[in-house]
Amino acid sequence: MLEQQDFQALQENFPFWDGLDDREKQIILDGTIRFTHDKGAIVHEDRNKCTGMLMVVSGQLRIYIISESGKEITLYRLFDRDVCVLSASCLIRNITFDVHIQAERKTTMLRVTTDSYQEVGKTNTQVQDFTNQLVSSRFSDVMWVVEQVVFMSFDRRLAMHLLETAAIAGDDSFSITHDAIARDLGTAREVVTRMLSRFQEDHLVKLSRGGITLLDREGLYALT
Amino acid sequence: MLEQQDFQALQENFPFWDGLDDREKQIILDGTIRFTHDKGAIVHEDRNKCTGMLMVVSGQLRIYIISESGKEITLYRLFDRDVCVLSASCLIRNITFDVHIQAERKTTMLRVTTDSYQEVGKTNTQVQDFTNQLVSSRFSDVMWVVEQVVFMSFDRRLAMHLLETAAIAGDDSFSITHDAIARDLGTAREVVTRMLSRFQEDHLVKLSRGGITLLDREGLYALT
Repeated sequence: MLEQQDFQALQENFPFWDGLDDREKQIILDGTIRFTHDKGAIVHEDRNKCTGMLMVVSGQLRIYIISESGKEITLYRLFDRDVCVLSASCLIRNITFDVHIQAERKTTMLRVTTDSYQEVGKTNTQVQDFTNQLVSSRFSDVMWVVEQVVFMSFDRRLAMHLLETAAIAGDDSFSITHDAIARDLGTAREVVTRMLSRFQEDHLVKLSRGGITLLDREGLYALT
Repeated sequence: MLEQQDFQALQENFPFWDGLDDREKQIILDGTIRFTHDKGAIVHEDRNKCTGMLMVVSGQLRIYIISESGKEITLYRLFDRDVCVLSASCLIRNITFDVHIQAERKTTMLRVTTDSYQEVGKTNTQVQDFTNQLVSSRFSDVMWVVEQVVFMSFDRRLAMHLLETAAIAGDDSFSITHDAIARDLGTAREVVTRMLSRFQEDHLVKLSRGGITLLDREGLYALT
């Protein structure tokens, strides 16, 4: 059942909403459900091609790819009010890859089925524009990943990642495993552990069981 | 001056061409020029945001990015009849990166100015669709690069690259420098030289001054 705040979320986060006629709004509403995933839950896998458009009401999603051997790299994260288009990649011609999506916190989402979204998008150019702008935004996000992976040394990438993680957590102390960092950055856990140990020797961070504390933000910024 | 074959190229490679009315066709024609770049010439740099849509009549283009320190990685190549959309990225909202384009052979192109293209695209949804499909295709190309860089060992990437280069050259012997391979794969020349030497020791390739000959295609395939 949709709640008042869900209507509001659709209206605020679909820039085309106010331009829809009543019939179109109803098609979207009929195709929208609200659901919540616990922290750690897999929201979308690459084998289920078309979960639909996902709008984050509250929480945090990680969008990533996995290799055949199980190695991962995070492409980007979505937060409150962000809309995920790659969970509906069947909508988009020429997107030949698919992604995995995991809830990194307890996350409440609205899912608009691809059928409803497509039905309205078929004739409404504002809906198409929105879809295409989302695709371009994600393309730009992925280009940023390419630049990081190809052009930046690993110490720089790790320093940036620690500063970002602290910003998301809103705290210089945060819980995170070396394995999770490795999955974000597309590398092996051993590589992360080795560099974190070096950071600790340089008094940039303090490592504890299951967590990291930033000791010297300036020093980490200097690395980036 | 456009030639008969240029009209034909526009008609054959813009899927929306036959759906344009005479006025729209004229706008595109007025904004189209034909030009040729020699092998090695830079066709588009990231600082000139909007060169326009480029259609390859004959030749070969390399689309790549460069780091501040001058390191490169190739994103994809375009061949006869391909259309380059990232040379007109100002057309596309939310594309926040830009690329470099180099002619790898003597290349004849049609350039449609962004103004003309945009003028027609403003009202013609088929033109918009084509643009968006191009963006999605390039997004998929770049995801393939991400997968290669992050998930594949370097020997595998190099073997694939040599097989691809032979396919493009139409010959198992081809001219290429270690530096050019390094720029394609986003790595250092020394890394390429070391791995090529190993391939030579394993009798997979024969190295010569400025060129490579594949000796054992099956062996290279086995690596991929």
